[in-house]
Amino acid sequence: MPYEFWYWTGIPGRGEFVRLALEAGGIAYKECARDPAIGDEGLVKHMQSGQRAQPPFAPPYLVADGITIAQTANILLFLGERHDLAPRDVAGRLWVNQLQLTIADMVAEAHDTHHPIDAARYYEEQKPEAAQRADVFRSARMPKFLDYFEHALADGAWLAGTRWTYADLSLYQLVKGLLFAFPKRMKTLAPGYPKVMALYQGVADLPELQNYFASPRHLPFGEGIFRHYPELDGE
Amino acid sequence: MPYEFWYWTGIPGRGEFVRLALEAGGIAYKECARDPAIGDEGLVKHMQSGQRAQPPFAPPYLVADGITIAQTANILLFLGERHDLAPRDVAGRLWVNQLQLTIADMVAEAHDTHHPIDAARYYEEQKPEAAQRADVFRSARMPKFLDYFEHALADGAWLAGTRWTYADLSLYQLVKGLLFAFPKRMKTLAPGYPKVMALYQGVADLPELQNYFASPRHLPFGEGIFRHYPELDGE
Repeated sequence: MPYEFWYWTGIPGRGEFVRLALEAGGIAYKECARDPAIGDEGLVKHMQSGQRAQPPFAPPYLVADGITIAQTANILLFLGERHDLAPRDVAGRLWVNQLQLTIADMVAEAHDTHHPIDAARYYEEQKPEAAQRADVFRSARMPKFLDYFEHALADGAWLAGTRWTYADLSLYQLVKGLLFAFPKRMKTLAPGYPKVMALYQGVADLPELQNYFASPRHLPFGEGIFRHYPELDGE
Repeated sequence: MPYEFWYWTGIPGRGEFVRLALEAGGIAYKECARDPAIGDEGLVKHMQSGQRAQPPFAPPYLVADGITIAQTANILLFLGERHDLAPRDVAGRLWVNQLQLTIADMVAEAHDTHHPIDAARYYEEQKPEAAQRADVFRSARMPKFLDYFEHALADGAWLAGTRWTYADLSLYQLVKGLLFAFPKRMKTLAPGYPKVMALYQGVADLPELQNYFASPRHLPFGEGIFRHYPELDGE
C-alpha cells in the first residue's frame, strides 16, 4: 500500500522536502489533499480527527503502516531508515539528521523574513519589520549558514559518503528557495560557495528526479516559505 | 569515559534540555566549558577546530565515543536510543522525536518574542517589534501549542507510555521557561491545561532530578531563551 502523504495543496512548502525524498527514493505515495474531493479543508479535518493517537501539530505528515508521522525532519528520519536514504551507521545517521535540523532552522528563518511578527497575518501588514529582518538575514544569516554547509561538504560532493542522502535533497531545495527569494543576494554569494552550488546542480540533474520535475506534481514557488519580494532582496 | 558536553557557561539555554536527560538518566558527563580554563572562548575554539569531520552549527553538542553530535533534538535522539530514555519501537521513537521537534519550535518562537529582528543585537534595540511579536505569541501561539501538548497527554500522565521520556523532561523545561518569562499569561492559561501542568509538577518531583536541582550545576534563567520582561507579559 502506498504511503499517505498529507500537505497543503497549493505550495511546495515544507512538504517539498518530503516529496523529494519520496520521489528520488522511488517510494509509492499518494498526495491525499490534492484529491479535489479532499483539498485543504479535508486536510484540516483529517489532521484534527480526534481518534488519532499521535496527532500532528501541523502538516506535512505521513501515514505509513498505520503510524502517523509528523515534523519534516522526523518524516525524513523514518524514510531514511526504511528506504536507505541515509547511512545506516549511528554516526552517519545522526550526522544527516543534524544537517536536516540545521536546514530546517534556515528554512524557518527564511520564512520569518517576510513574516517576522505574525505568521497568520499578511506580509503587507508587517512590511517595515520584514525589511529589517530580511536585511539581517541577507547580511549575517545567509553567509553564516552557507559557510557551514560549504564546510560540511569539504570531504566530497555529497554531505555524507559517496551517494546522496535526504539531507542533500533538502539542501538543494533550500538553495533553490534562496535563489528564488533572494536572486540578487545569491548572485553575489554563490561564487563563494562552489561546493554548495555544485550539490544544488547535482540534485537538479539526478536521473531519479527528472520525471518528477517534469510532472504536474511538482509545484512552483508562490505564497509559501520562499517568496520573492524584490524589496526584501539586495546585493 | 563520561560524555563531553559543550554549551555556553552562563545560561540554561538549549543545553538544559540535554542536561535534564543526562541527569535524569544517570549518565556520566563533563560540562566542558565550565572548566575556568576553557570558558565560552574555549568553547568557540573547540567548536571551530577545523579537523572536526561532522562540525556543529552551534552549541549544544555532545562528544560521545568520538562522534560529535549537535542539534538538541538530535542529541536527545541519540541519548534516548542509547540510554532507554524513549520507547524502543519505531512508532514510539518517532512520536517522541516529533514531540521534541514541536517543543523546539515553540522554544524558538519564545526566543523570538524578545529578538524578533536580530538575535545578534540587544533586546533594547528591537523593543517595539518585540512587543508586537510577544503579543501574537501570548494570544495565539501559546494556546495553540499548549492545546496540542494537552491533547498529546490525553492517554496518560506521560507523553509516551507509562514512564517519562526525554520529551517529557523537555516539555517540563518549556513550561518552566514560560512560567518564568510570562507569569501573568501563564496564570491565566494554566488552569486550562491540567495535564500539561501535572506533567510539569511530575518532572519537578522526579527523584532522579532532586540532586541536580539542588546542585550548582543547575543554573537559573537569565539572559537566554526565556527572559522575563514585564512589558512583554500580560494576562
